[in-house]
Amino acid sequence: MYSNFMKIALELAQKSADEFEVPVGAVIVKDEKILATGRNTQEKSCNALMHAEIIAINKACKNLNSWRLFNCEIFVTLEPCSMCAGAIINSRIKRLIFGAHNPKFGAVGSVVNLFDMSFNHKPEIISGVLEKESKKLLIDFFHFCRNK
Amino acid sequence: MYSNFMKIALELAQKSADEFEVPVGAVIVKDEKILATGRNTQEKSCNALMHAEIIAINKACKNLNSWRLFNCEIFVTLEPCSMCAGAIINSRIKRLIFGAHNPKFGAVGSVVNLFDMSFNHKPEIISGVLEKESKKLLIDFFHFCRNK
Repeated sequence: MYSNFMKIALELAQKSADEFEVPVGAVIVKDEKILATGRNTQEKSCNALMHAEIIAINKACKNLNSWRLFNCEIFVTLEPCSMCAGAIINSRIKRLIFGAHNPKFGAVGSVVNLFDMSFNHKPEIISGVLEKESKKLLIDFFHFCRNK
Repeated sequence: MYSNFMKIALELAQKSADEFEVPVGAVIVKDEKILATGRNTQEKSCNALMHAEIIAINKACKNLNSWRLFNCEIFVTLEPCSMCAGAIINSRIKRLIFGAHNPKFGAVGSVVNLFDMSFNHKPEIISGVLEKESKKLLIDFFHFCRNK
């Protein structure tokens, strides 16, 4: 079940890679239906906020007309950074499902775990879903960048 | 010098309070000129992302047409949450100047200090600028909410 939505997140990540962006995709699900999606467009948009998760959360809030994304799950191909982990806390998303860990920037277990602190909301975490596929996308992308 | 820009951030925070929003204001400065401003509009916009800092960073990236806010300073009336602290790191802002500490949600010293971790950018921090004024705004606002 988790892998179906993560596959869609991976397809979004591939689109980012095709546009020379770091390949990260995100899908927000409510009642087993897709509520919103996002993919990294930081370079193209010239905007530090345009991570996959932020774009998806922005759309989800608009779609629900609420800043509280109760009973929503977010599927992300890569462990969120501190900005995105904070946005997941602030929007009250119930559960985060991610693929690959992010040793340099990950804020839900790698560098720090923001979901394990005394904030007023602690989303559940499921990690490693289609991890190999997500890692391969990232490794291929950075290999391409180095050889360019 | 710091208090002049913080006064403008406080005026923005007051506008949020006037609209029944938690009073927080932010001003981004480059070369001693205001590049962008923001104030909390989370309730009105029904959007968890609409914190003062995120709104200001979004505008600043658009104004510079760059995701890198090199040599920029951000003045915020309240210690940033983890989402906003992460956005300050991601956008490479040089220095954060804030007023009041935020014991429940603050992510640059109170609950956690994200600027003191092994991320690839560590903004400088100056805290306590017009702290009393910022605290008073917040205390008055929450007092009003409780009595409403």
